[in-house]
Amino acid sequence: MNKPIPQADRVRQLGVETAFLVAAKAAAHAAAGNKVYPFHLGDLNLPTPENITAATLRAIQAGKTGYTANAGLAELRDALAEEINRSRGTAYSRDNVAIQPGGKPVIGKFLLALMNPGDEVLYPNPGFPIYESQINFHGGVAIPYGIKAGENNFSFDLEVMEAAINERTRLLIVNDLHNPTSAECSADDRRRIAELAVRHNLLVLLDEAYYDIRFEGESASLISEPGMAERSVILYTFSKRFAMTGWRLGAALGPREVIDTIIKLNVNDESCTAHFVQYGGLEALTGEQSGALALIEVLQARRDRAVDLLNSIEGISCYRPQASFYLFPDVTEAMANSGCDTYQQFLEAVLEHTGVSLCTRSHFGTPLPDEERRYLRLAFSGIDLHLIEEGLQRLKVYLER
Amino acid sequence: MNKPIPQADRVRQLGVETAFLVAAKAAAHAAAGNKVYPFHLGDLNLPTPENITAATLRAIQAGKTGYTANAGLAELRDALAEEINRSRGTAYSRDNVAIQPGGKPVIGKFLLALMNPGDEVLYPNPGFPIYESQINFHGGVAIPYGIKAGENNFSFDLEVMEAAINERTRLLIVNDLHNPTSAECSADDRRRIAELAVRHNLLVLLDEAYYDIRFEGESASLISEPGMAERSVILYTFSKRFAMTGWRLGAALGPREVIDTIIKLNVNDESCTAHFVQYGGLEALTGEQSGALALIEVLQARRDRAVDLLNSIEGISCYRPQASFYLFPDVTEAMANSGCDTYQQFLEAVLEHTGVSLCTRSHFGTPLPDEERRYLRLAFSGIDLHLIEEGLQRLKVYLER
Repeated sequence: MNKPIPQADRVRQLGVETAFLVAAKAAAHAAAGNKVYPFHLGDLNLPTPENITAATLRAIQAGKTGYTANAGLAELRDALAEEINRSRGTAYSRDNVAIQPGGKPVIGKFLLALMNPGDEVLYPNPGFPIYESQINFHGGVAIPYGIKAGENNFSFDLEVMEAAINERTRLLIVNDLHNPTSAECSADDRRRIAELAVRHNLLVLLDEAYYDIRFEGESASLISEPGMAERSVILYTFSKRFAMTGWRLGAALGPREVIDTIIKLNVNDESCTAHFVQYGGLEALTGEQSGALALIEVLQARRDRAVDLLNSIEGISCYRPQASFYLFPDVTEAMANSGCDTYQQFLEAVLEHTGVSLCTRSHFGTPLPDEERRYLRLAFSGIDLHLIEEGLQRLKVYLER
Repeated sequence: MNKPIPQADRVRQLGVETAFLVAAKAAAHAAAGNKVYPFHLGDLNLPTPENITAATLRAIQAGKTGYTANAGLAELRDALAEEINRSRGTAYSRDNVAIQPGGKPVIGKFLLALMNPGDEVLYPNPGFPIYESQINFHGGVAIPYGIKAGENNFSFDLEVMEAAINERTRLLIVNDLHNPTSAECSADDRRRIAELAVRHNLLVLLDEAYYDIRFEGESASLISEPGMAERSVILYTFSKRFAMTGWRLGAALGPREVIDTIIKLNVNDESCTAHFVQYGGLEALTGEQSGALALIEVLQARRDRAVDLLNSIEGISCYRPQASFYLFPDVTEAMANSGCDTYQQFLEAVLEHTGVSLCTRSHFGTPLPDEERRYLRLAFSGIDLHLIEEGLQRLKVYLER
């Protein structure tokens, strides 16, 4: 059998995170002896708070190494329900919580539980590329809505969202706060989206992975709007808030009947999330918070320096988002000045001449027909302050040469 | 929205492991103040070997807490390729290995990568219930083949397997060594199955979760037969061999083009398996083996005592399997003597009167039309020797009353 193995038709619909390809090029550039400034990946280069690792070590040593219930540890489900009730005004109990090996598994499980083939699903573009991939892979029809540039930040284009709704529209994905733009809903946006969802009987995935990565103001959730708790699943993750990306710990929270189905998917897919990792999560939610708060201080200093430096570069304009760890500067003029026509050319030239590794708008979905401006995405989660300064200084020199 | 949330049609096809329901009843019986003898679940009540936990603690303390590559750590993929090459004569490299959060995720990913809706998939019944659930959930047609009672052990019914193959048959699932019966292929069986797979161009899932839980003889794999490496995916798990059930660590091994698709599924589903857990797996494969070997000794003593006691009970007959940690005694006469018509009645009576908690054939797929004998499934992985003795002695007294 030397001919290719025939794979399932759905595999042709399967996308990836092309940011990982950027990482591979950065690694090759570094391996060739060059200094690289890693602005490309949404990982954190900060340690998990010590009390969380200590609780996990204790759990391993105490033999918490067998299966847990498919839904996760009851204590962790209780603690997470309480945390979401406190921060978002819901009335969840443990029955509304299904622990997952990360936040990402919630995307596929939400779609498998609620989307039939042919159903239309609204999703943000630019946006996290896994939404579109999973919608298409499981037979849905992915319908994008865009993001608008405003006075102080990006916002969701609710006109496009509303205009896209028709009788086949069944699901809506909202990523508030938003990767890659750091857009967030205003109070008025939340009211309008909730009204749309209720009026058109949409089921909603609220991806709130960055809810607690906040420097000013206060996060608010669509789940608090009337009618939303009954029709929404929250994607919660420990990854960003507690610097636990590689621990793979998250959860789905929502109406019990949907959570029951997601728990059945847990039975079928991975049985449960690693036992002692769940004890780490319990300590993260219920233990000392100084470690998590210290992360925010480090990230805020990085944000401020990166925004200032980007705005000092001719032809670049960047908001100062109040939350998340992404910047999405408008580089339309800088790219034009550089003589690069395509994002790909620009990325390669920048990496080659400066060592700065970053993503562009094109890594977050196919650009929409009416898009005229060009954007980069820089994550400041995985790069120290002095390297932010050095890298962006190099970028400035290169672009203003 | 107080009416039920409409879920996707495929959810109606989603099964569970009904063994978990047995566990719930056992827990309720224990909570009511009764002593319970847990023969029902395939978890281990033995600690993970100390060198594995120590390596994991070191990894956490060394900050191995960020994402790994989607396919897993290169060192772990290398070590696992080498382990399978050593034990099964394959020629895998790291490109043939995709690390997973457990063995179970390989089942769904194999089907999503290779099965189109309407494809027929042969699977063992009695068998691990997740095969049938995942085949149906993702739109395939699950076609059972049975297990035969032989002189010294159960074996796969290759006549039924062959007769079931037609032009729609595309995939074959083989669980060798087999849960729940401990059936294993003879050398002749392996040749015949490989010939069938090659002749009919079937793609094969080899679930070898129990390959290394062996008391006598030597395990051999279908993957070593001509033509099989090119068409098979091995489900490997660290769960049983190293008492790491709750760690959630396993892998898919197979042709690079299929593994590449499974890695893309990793990107979409869970990004990667927990980082420091993979270091535990690396130590399990490459470090000191005395802990893993000690597990086998404990399990062998349990097997021998359980088999002897079961065979001492009137109306029960049980093989002494050379591998795995399951017993599948024929209890046709004992059930008839007990006056119970159904498995459910029998289970409830046994739990109520003896505290012995176990599964039956009905927890491993719908009994086939021509089945006349009745079987229980006892796992001896999660119960200490003295409780095996006490529990089965109670069962004997109850059934011979």
